[in-house]
Amino acid sequence: MTKIGMLLVGHGSKLPYNKELIETTAEFIAEKADEYIVKPGFMSINEPTVEEQLDAFRSEDIDMLVVVPLFLARGIHIDRDIPELLGLPEGGKKGTFKTNGEEIPLIYASPIGSDPLLAELMLKNASDAIAELEH
Amino acid sequence: MTKIGMLLVGHGSKLPYNKELIETTAEFIAEKADEYIVKPGFMSINEPTVEEQLDAFRSEDIDMLVVVPLFLARGIHIDRDIPELLGLPEGGKKGTFKTNGEEIPLIYASPIGSDPLLAELMLKNASDAIAELEH
Repeated sequence: MTKIGMLLVGHGSKLPYNKELIETTAEFIAEKADEYIVKPGFMSINEPTVEEQLDAFRSEDIDMLVVVPLFLARGIHIDRDIPELLGLPEGGKKGTFKTNGEEIPLIYASPIGSDPLLAELMLKNASDAIAELEH
Repeated sequence: MTKIGMLLVGHGSKLPYNKELIETTAEFIAEKADEYIVKPGFMSINEPTVEEQLDAFRSEDIDMLVVVPLFLARGIHIDRDIPELLGLPEGGKKGTFKTNGEEIPLIYASPIGSDPLLAELMLKNASDAIAELEH
């Protein structure tokens, strides 16, 4: 089976909520999708950092590394800072990654962006809040 | 039919992507859910502001106002700034809203937070990026 490394990138925050969100989401993904080895990494303040997790992936037995930013939308981190850490040019989506002495494909995915699933999530949060009011 | 006002609150950004995301998501929600009148409002930089949209809801024929923050996780905006604009105490989730001379319930929903749907979204973004690589 193809094993895919997934680096889930979070913004990081002085408050604990962003870190909790990224880590719990990484666990949900690992439970759902057997083919992925998931590691959360942060752009600032929290640890492990993105660099530390890239290093950690270098000794994993994976055929591909996909970097998925858990950000709502594009911005400076997405367009400039993360590509820089991955050795990609600005706007670049594909590169290579050295692991166990081999070169494997590196793929940089998009942030959440406009997606009907996001609208569903918002409707769910609204209904949950209304249901609570009625109790 | 009960008509519910939904104020979809965005962070705002100097770059156009946050505004686009909030506005497109508001449109998706309006298409999906007939019972909602949806208006997007921003905490900073972009317009219309949250205050302007609260004012706009005062002349709408709604039975309830639900305020849904399109934020990934809790933070200062969620815990302090938005409740302040809504006249809620910190941690408060329910209040009242004056519209057309009537008092209707105001409900403050949670941000996205840890949700299996978010993990699905991340997996979708990963698969989409991998599929593109293969073309």
